[in-house]
Amino acid sequence: MTESLKQKVYEANMMLPKYNLVTFTWGNVSQIDRETGLFAIKPSGVAYEDLSPDDMVIMDLEGNHIEGKLKPSSDTAAHIALYKAFPEIGGIIHTHSTWATSWAQSGRDIPCYGTTHADYFYGPIPCTRDLSEEEYGEYEKNTGLLIAETFSLRHLDYRSIPAVLCRNHGPFAWGKDAQEAVYHGTVLERVAEMAAHGEALNTSIMPAPQAMQDKHYLRKHGRNAYYGQ
Amino acid sequence: MTESLKQKVYEANMMLPKYNLVTFTWGNVSQIDRETGLFAIKPSGVAYEDLSPDDMVIMDLEGNHIEGKLKPSSDTAAHIALYKAFPEIGGIIHTHSTWATSWAQSGRDIPCYGTTHADYFYGPIPCTRDLSEEEYGEYEKNTGLLIAETFSLRHLDYRSIPAVLCRNHGPFAWGKDAQEAVYHGTVLERVAEMAAHGEALNTSIMPAPQAMQDKHYLRKHGRNAYYGQ
Amino acid sequence: MTESLKQKVYEANMMLPKYNLVTFTWGNVSQIDRETGLFAIKPSGVAYEDLSPDDMVIMDLEGNHIEGKLKPSSDTAAHIALYKAFPEIGGIIHTHSTWATSWAQSGRDIPCYGTTHADYFYGPIPCTRDLSEEEYGEYEKNTGLLIAETFSLRHLDYRSIPAVLCRNHGPFAWGKDAQEAVYHGTVLERVAEMAAHGEALNTSIMPAPQAMQDKHYLRKHGRNAYYGQ
Amino acid sequence: MTESLKQKVYEANMMLPKYNLVTFTWGNVSQIDRETGLFAIKPSGVAYEDLSPDDMVIMDLEGNHIEGKLKPSSDTAAHIALYKAFPEIGGIIHTHSTWATSWAQSGRDIPCYGTTHADYFYGPIPCTRDLSEEEYGEYEKNTGLLIAETFSLRHLDYRSIPAVLCRNHGPFAWGKDAQEAVYHGTVLERVAEMAAHGEALNTSIMPAPQAMQDKHYLRKHGRNAYYGQ
Repeated sequence: MTESLKQKVYEANMMLPKYNLVTFTWGNVSQIDRETGLFAIKPSGVAYEDLSPDDMVIMDLEGNHIEGKLKPSSDTAAHIALYKAFPEIGGIIHTHSTWATSWAQSGRDIPCYGTTHADYFYGPIPCTRDLSEEEYGEYEKNTGLLIAETFSLRHLDYRSIPAVLCRNHGPFAWGKDAQEAVYHGTVLERVAEMAAHGEALNTSIMPAPQAMQDKHYLRKHGRNAYYGQ
Repeated sequence: MTESLKQKVYEANMMLPKYNLVTFTWGNVSQIDRETGLFAIKPSGVAYEDLSPDDMVIMDLEGNHIEGKLKPSSDTAAHIALYKAFPEIGGIIHTHSTWATSWAQSGRDIPCYGTTHADYFYGPIPCTRDLSEEEYGEYEKNTGLLIAETFSLRHLDYRSIPAVLCRNHGPFAWGKDAQEAVYHGTVLERVAEMAAHGEALNTSIMPAPQAMQDKHYLRKHGRNAYYGQ
Repeated sequence: MTESLKQKVYEANMMLPKYNLVTFTWGNVSQIDRETGLFAIKPSGVAYEDLSPDDMVIMDLEGNHIEGKLKPSSDTAAHIALYKAFPEIGGIIHTHSTWATSWAQSGRDIPCYGTTHADYFYGPIPCTRDLSEEEYGEYEKNTGLLIAETFSLRHLDYRSIPAVLCRNHGPFAWGKDAQEAVYHGTVLERVAEMAAHGEALNTSIMPAPQAMQDKHYLRKHGRNAYYGQ
Repeated sequence: MTESLKQKVYEANMMLPKYNLVTFTWGNVSQIDRETGLFAIKPSGVAYEDLSPDDMVIMDLEGNHIEGKLKPSSDTAAHIALYKAFPEIGGIIHTHSTWATSWAQSGRDIPCYGTTHADYFYGPIPCTRDLSEEEYGEYEKNTGLLIAETFSLRHLDYRSIPAVLCRNHGPFAWGKDAQEAVYHGTVLERVAEMAAHGEALNTSIMPAPQAMQDKHYLRKHGRNAYYGQ
């Protein structure tokens, strides 16, 4: 089982350079097997060009290192907190991708300006508050908890908004598995770029009409979806 | 006949990743054979790297699936509406290319700021209104009808302005065949980017003089064209 | 002689896609042999991937087609006017490169904001006026004459400012041969981009001090140059 | 010893085109051997595609040319001044990379807007003053001295802020060796781009909280670092 998980997480990690989401080692992807509670995650600080499936690290949700010679991503505690808080997700991505990080650094939610956004995110993509000084004690864990808090306090559904901006930090995204998480991380980056350009073009820009947001999200998701094969 | 059509539409679709107009599957190209009324179109939600000519779907203008194992693009009804409304076009492209989509999301026409624009588009590239809530019932078909309405109400000639921005959505472009449609979609993206940069550089920017727009459009189009071999 | 000229102009033209200065066929490069008065230029509307040295067209300064099966670039008359007006240049490039064209469309000179600019251009890069309606009669020729007029009226030296922005159109650049012309066209594009970003970062941005402009230009040009091997 | 130094400096220089930090020859990297006081540096004005390890030039800190057939980078005197002023650095990079140069031309420090910055730079990245007219006499040497002055006058630690913007010019960065210098130069470019986008998105943008800056810098640096293998 863990071999297959490592292979999938390796392949998902290798999509990051392909889709131009990382510089150096600034990103990591994980996928969990919900039956066993084990997940595979990228090792810390290893260059993508040197990565092999065997380098992936197997962890459990208590933070125990189960398999692998290398140390797991330094963001592992954030992944664990998210897997615990969001029971229906199977994969997580964290990057410092250019445009999503720029929004995170600006401290703003990304409004839904059109169908590219609405096809994958049902409403604005939220930006968290900053962590408090105390919360930096267990920084990575608290990053995950803060994401969960943000969705809870703002009554957002993590299943229909599969991404978040961590203020002054960068994006996390998730999905049913590692590959979908990377997909959502890539959509987020494109949506973040286009939202920035649109605001520059029209200072009175308005979010897309609700009817459009409903139509686009629902033609790809839920019982009546009809996009794809 | 359909084999040749599928091959051409396949090749035109493969220009989208080449010219950096698509992320994932967010684009589709079709071409019609006006004699038989059949057109070939990209299948829905299939990755470009997995595409083969045989995957192209043959449809008729009543929306009947004539040939092909896969479901056609979810935007097929929009293509049909455009082929019906614009009798002289032979190919259509739809993408979510970055800059054209940013303009669409800003809700603005792209003014003609120079010769790159004027060489292919005779006047501003229009941005439609949003669809009304009712029109989302037959979303894709009404997208095509709205494009036709926009050209009609604003007295625009689809032959000399072969592209449109669908508000809060993205661009459609067309041409005499699929390849020319992709060409126009690519020009649109470049023109959209440069218009955005020019506005940032000069908040008092003005459209290109009419004499320049006339000269450039007419040296490439119509009876007295002299560009090319 | 013409074989060698064609080869050089072919190689210089092929630098345009390499340095990302062209989309499709939107650029052309020429080089003149001052002894014979003959120059080689890219044929009109031919894709760069299909180009061979033999496709280059040999012309004289009276506009006579001397050698080659294809029609010369539609901008040939502008090249001729520049070769006549600027006797010390040996090569010319014209493109619609993104950032330089954005400045041209904004109608503004590019101020000298730093050493990247000062290393190659001794002062702002001028933007011409628009052509008058009458001047569109002999459009390409008058484009070249307007460039010469701009340098003359503004007392600029074409040898120390080897580029210009044609308003609402795009850049021309030149040099001692085709290769240097392409080099200057590439520098122009980088300088145009950085000047735009700098203005966005600081609305009170000022040109580089004159002492810096002097130092940088003169360490690469003139009798006391010491850059390079 | 010098063979190994040349090889390392060659490899570090070749990272510049890989990470898209240079156009043409606008960049140079060096590395010093502190025991012998010799350093290897890129030759002046040689294209990256033509470079070989053997082209690297060996110099000493008095500016004597020790080994190599080619002239050293025209910026050699700036490297020497930095090696003298900053005794704990082992490698230096200078480029005209797009976003860092845009900030340098704007004359502004890059504020620390988030963790990407804080992971490598402990506080804003400073922008120097312009050189005075007199200082252009020994331009390259004075560039290095001005960098040292900037860190000294502003009480900055070159070990925790391993980069600087030379006003109206471009960035220098450094590290324990040539490879780390290039790494820091690449981070600087990404950080510079994201800071520019963030300011455009939010004109009231604030630097990252000090607690975050402390946490991120210190998890990668110093005695308690825990990032990487």
